[in-house]
Amino acid sequence: MIKVGIIGATGYAGGELVRLLTGHKEAEIVWYGSKSYIDKKYADIYRNMFEVVEDSCLNDNMEELAKKADVIFTATPQGFLASVMSEEILSETKIIDLSADYRLKDVSVYEKWYGIEHKSPQFLEEAVYGLCEVNREKVKGARLIANPGCYTTCSILTAYPLAKEGIIDMNTLIIDAKSGTSGAGRGAKLSNLYCEVNENIKAYGVATHRHTPEIEEQLSYASGEETVINFTPHLVPMNRGILATEYASLKKEVTYEEVKAIYDHYYKEETFVRVLEKDVCPETKWVEGSNYADINFKLDLRTNRIIMMGAIDNLVKGAAGQAVQNMNIMFGLEESEGLKLVPMFP
Amino acid sequence: MIKVGIIGATGYAGGELVRLLTGHKEAEIVWYGSKSYIDKKYADIYRNMFEVVEDSCLNDNMEELAKKADVIFTATPQGFLASVMSEEILSETKIIDLSADYRLKDVSVYEKWYGIEHKSPQFLEEAVYGLCEVNREKVKGARLIANPGCYTTCSILTAYPLAKEGIIDMNTLIIDAKSGTSGAGRGAKLSNLYCEVNENIKAYGVATHRHTPEIEEQLSYASGEETVINFTPHLVPMNRGILATEYASLKKEVTYEEVKAIYDHYYKEETFVRVLEKDVCPETKWVEGSNYADINFKLDLRTNRIIMMGAIDNLVKGAAGQAVQNMNIMFGLEESEGLKLVPMFP
Amino acid sequence: MIKVGIIGATGYAGGELVRLLTGHKEAEIVWYGSKSYIDKKYADIYRNMFEVVEDSCLNDNMEELAKKADVIFTATPQGFLASVMSEEILSETKIIDLSADYRLKDVSVYEKWYGIEHKSPQFLEEAVYGLCEVNREKVKGARLIANPGCYTTCSILTAYPLAKEGIIDMNTLIIDAKSGTSGAGRGAKLSNLYCEVNENIKAYGVATHRHTPEIEEQLSYASGEETVINFTPHLVPMNRGILATEYASLKKEVTYEEVKAIYDHYYKEETFVRVLEKDVCPETKWVEGSNYADINFKLDLRTNRIIMMGAIDNLVKGAAGQAVQNMNIMFGLEESEGLKLVPMFP
Amino acid sequence: MIKVGIIGATGYAGGELVRLLTGHKEAEIVWYGSKSYIDKKYADIYRNMFEVVEDSCLNDNMEELAKKADVIFTATPQGFLASVMSEEILSETKIIDLSADYRLKDVSVYEKWYGIEHKSPQFLEEAVYGLCEVNREKVKGARLIANPGCYTTCSILTAYPLAKEGIIDMNTLIIDAKSGTSGAGRGAKLSNLYCEVNENIKAYGVATHRHTPEIEEQLSYASGEETVINFTPHLVPMNRGILATEYASLKKEVTYEEVKAIYDHYYKEETFVRVLEKDVCPETKWVEGSNYADINFKLDLRTNRIIMMGAIDNLVKGAAGQAVQNMNIMFGLEESEGLKLVPMFP
Repeated sequence: MIKVGIIGATGYAGGELVRLLTGHKEAEIVWYGSKSYIDKKYADIYRNMFEVVEDSCLNDNMEELAKKADVIFTATPQGFLASVMSEEILSETKIIDLSADYRLKDVSVYEKWYGIEHKSPQFLEEAVYGLCEVNREKVKGARLIANPGCYTTCSILTAYPLAKEGIIDMNTLIIDAKSGTSGAGRGAKLSNLYCEVNENIKAYGVATHRHTPEIEEQLSYASGEETVINFTPHLVPMNRGILATEYASLKKEVTYEEVKAIYDHYYKEETFVRVLEKDVCPETKWVEGSNYADINFKLDLRTNRIIMMGAIDNLVKGAAGQAVQNMNIMFGLEESEGLKLVPMFP
Repeated sequence: MIKVGIIGATGYAGGELVRLLTGHKEAEIVWYGSKSYIDKKYADIYRNMFEVVEDSCLNDNMEELAKKADVIFTATPQGFLASVMSEEILSETKIIDLSADYRLKDVSVYEKWYGIEHKSPQFLEEAVYGLCEVNREKVKGARLIANPGCYTTCSILTAYPLAKEGIIDMNTLIIDAKSGTSGAGRGAKLSNLYCEVNENIKAYGVATHRHTPEIEEQLSYASGEETVINFTPHLVPMNRGILATEYASLKKEVTYEEVKAIYDHYYKEETFVRVLEKDVCPETKWVEGSNYADINFKLDLRTNRIIMMGAIDNLVKGAAGQAVQNMNIMFGLEESEGLKLVPMFP
Repeated sequence: MIKVGIIGATGYAGGELVRLLTGHKEAEIVWYGSKSYIDKKYADIYRNMFEVVEDSCLNDNMEELAKKADVIFTATPQGFLASVMSEEILSETKIIDLSADYRLKDVSVYEKWYGIEHKSPQFLEEAVYGLCEVNREKVKGARLIANPGCYTTCSILTAYPLAKEGIIDMNTLIIDAKSGTSGAGRGAKLSNLYCEVNENIKAYGVATHRHTPEIEEQLSYASGEETVINFTPHLVPMNRGILATEYASLKKEVTYEEVKAIYDHYYKEETFVRVLEKDVCPETKWVEGSNYADINFKLDLRTNRIIMMGAIDNLVKGAAGQAVQNMNIMFGLEESEGLKLVPMFP
Repeated sequence: MIKVGIIGATGYAGGELVRLLTGHKEAEIVWYGSKSYIDKKYADIYRNMFEVVEDSCLNDNMEELAKKADVIFTATPQGFLASVMSEEILSETKIIDLSADYRLKDVSVYEKWYGIEHKSPQFLEEAVYGLCEVNREKVKGARLIANPGCYTTCSILTAYPLAKEGIIDMNTLIIDAKSGTSGAGRGAKLSNLYCEVNENIKAYGVATHRHTPEIEEQLSYASGEETVINFTPHLVPMNRGILATEYASLKKEVTYEEVKAIYDHYYKEETFVRVLEKDVCPETKWVEGSNYADINFKLDLRTNRIIMMGAIDNLVKGAAGQAVQNMNIMFGLEESEGLKLVPMFP
């Protein structure tokens, strides 16, 4: 059994890690880290876990935890992991970081978009960007995984095959994304109150959202071109789900069948990416609770553009699910262990 | 592998049966019955099942199905199963009926509340009321299970220990229940449209809802007294979940500890019933997607009443989950096989 | 023009007062009190008011305000008004208090249920309980109005005619109430976050909710009997609306027509109470945004009980609307001025 | 008093017309047309109107109605009005058509996008496109108004000033729009059921939605260039509201202040268009129930694009409200009569 520690176990992503790992046959949680709820029973915070989890929350002691755990998931605010990271810790355990601390290779980009100093840039090179379908081989040997952001996972997977194959003009890429409210976290903020979110939709972080450079970096690798995009997130009155609607001009004339073949080439063997049938638009509800990314596209001859669409559950494929998928790859387990979750409908 | 047939596989309860059985290690679905979608791919109806279920829908042919399946789940409108039922079918297969056809022992009560003639009352005596925690022993040998209604499962489990132990005056019992909208089914009716249900709450079927006599019959068995109750269902703007708030006068002075001990006596060993800690009110969200029933109570000395509360997921413990639980019991499997579902939050 | 001051203008009830008074022909707001947002533009807090309200928020200075305003609405936490109230203030202005400070005549009941000391019990006798349809004559001459609670307004109006006429056994009265989330206020609390409330229903404050003694007191006056009830509130995933489902045993045999005649006797001439047609259940959506209370009932001969149902918009008839109605009565204006609001559907 | 007839009074847009006209001082409804509910009391269909509207529904008899009414609102399916329109009708009454029958000047574009034959193209030239802020002068003398679509109203108003002033490259314009569910109408369709829409977001009609050519035609007029755009609508789990997020490349370098000045130039005097303050993103909740369009923009120097955003209530400014605004202009009334609606929050 793999011994797992979680730092930040009482946030929404942390809670989802607990839900998924509870059903994982080869892993057991040995540390429910939560600075806010030390010594409180975990099931008193998340009552869905009553009679499922008996443990209480522990402090965020990375050094002690590193000795106990085979792998640590950090579902923590930006900057936390970078500030406590050390070679010693990494020599004792593996780390899968759900924050943004090691996602961007260029420390100056991190510091500019996140507005904080990076305390351990020396680990940036080693860190593997854990987008499993793209970086599977690198994940296998990694000690430190930068688990991708929720918007980024959805945005990149949706455009990746066409970026890689040079089908779309990368500088025309516009990503209009929509997210459920769990993406905003469990902090008691006015803007996340039920009555403020319900019956409402808005854009936010327009032209400034932190997932922008992450998408740009990864799609630059894929396309081989420096990619600068527009990314606009929106808050939707629902608990879970991200939908990305992406627009790009086509570099050459292509047919539906040609584009479909490209998507199939990249994703047909992928358990967790489903390329939908012609004219079927992805819906977040169809992936809710699962690790699937549902993807499709539509060619528009009138404008010579392609509209790509992708849907994920932000807490699963966009956070905890992908983190477990990374763990499975790192430890040589079946990649879908603990993740054979059929989406719940309705 | 147990061969399973489903009649009514494209309703919400049918869809939930498919979700649960897909994860069941000892069962496989051999028949996706759906009169409305014959020959259509099941995954085209429920797109969450894309790349999970490859089969197409078949007609509702009970006789053919009886030869193929070890057990048939009928998630069909009232009257369907009664109209096609025969000794021949029952001699070939087991049946778990999610409709009301065999829940009420008295055919005249059925015909009065449901307003239709019962076409095969001769099977009423044999049918076992499949409330697993109460009738487990009878379920074991049954050929025909009347799977309890969603409101009734929640209402009965919540009051059962106190009815059985003579703590509450049965003629004072009032059940005020609240249900998510999936309980209304997948029919394209005006009253179930998003804009009609959203931002709204209402009572319906006041003093006339069909689950009333079912609750009364079962609680009469439990208490040994003829029980006549008020049962008022309400429609709540959410997909899943039933909450029952139940009021009754106490027959004698009792303490919190005494009542808690009674609940624990009946449910402590039950996997799927969770008696909550003192002063914690059940919430439907904490059981969503799972087979749990969460139960608690509050004594009110001012009025000499007890307020009992229970929460279930109407599609799981209130329908498909309990049906699978019954199947597990009937076939001698581990009772929780396929049902180890951790509630999803948020 | 009546000069109006609001203390607590940035809570949900305060915001609703602003919305209603903006459309009132004989009143103008001269003071937007909000301790939390002093000097901030009101329309920056409630952006629906952009280009509608130009003023900024002011501190909660009751003494200064009393000199400026003909009437002050206090939409403040319990205890605030009682702590600043004085004969001097009341000699200069009228006060409509949306908190509970002057609702209960017995100071010991207040202190027990609210858990705080009452700082100015000397005004309790003078204060008029502003349930307009019941106390209209007293409101006319009042200086100090205790505006009823949201649950209480709905609960009392629904049962009042039958309590008054001795139709129901007051000691059997059980009120099961359901409220939208705006009733919980605009405080940034974990339990009011979107993801905690959405797709969920729960009871809270079981047997201990503070509106209980308020309902009991008023229904005792109506029935002439000391009334002790069960009152159970529930939180519903919607912004606005309260539905009360009330159960009581009948003291004598009555027909539908007799009960209907009683309701009509009390409410036929009332602009804001609508007694629905036979078998039509009140729904909160049909009163949303308006000052209406929709009421109906169902006789259950099987149990000899009556089920009464009432629906209001908690922020209008349950708070700001009734407060404006009280103002209109106090100042001799048309009672419906500023309140001719057609419910918004959907 | 202007005598108003409504054809299609029981759809959601028709219901909103009734709500708005009920509060209009110079208009009275003389005909509640509803083919589906002939002779039924209007308030039995929309129970929010109980004790507000006493009339019953009448058949869709345009000729009889034309003699009785000074103006007819047709909130009907595409093709209805075109099939019954005649010079005789237009000589007797004015018509404000909420369907698409007279919005597109080119009949072949209409027939291609709507897939039906246009039965009275001879009126296309006369019909005035009733986007009040743009075509006010033409509306004044019109007999036949083509009331704009909901998506189009929002999309055009948001981009109009920049299109008109040549700031944006029209061929780069991409509109990603999000709508509440009332836009899908009140038909009892599976896809509009609560459980299908709730907790879900999806795109639909990608590259084929019928509002596309309407937006293109109007923005072509504004910009003086033939404009071909991408328009992608999305269905959002909320009752009301449309948000349009629009992307376009800048034709020249501009500052925030310059763009703001352009928006102010066009909209400062407009009662119903609010250009928000810097960095404030429009939210649909802030305009709910009102006739406002809230608009703002963000410059992105990194991509040389501008992101424009607009929010309206689809049933008010996107349908019934704009229709009443057109009526007010046509009849020489104050333009905001009946439309002084403060948005409801929450």
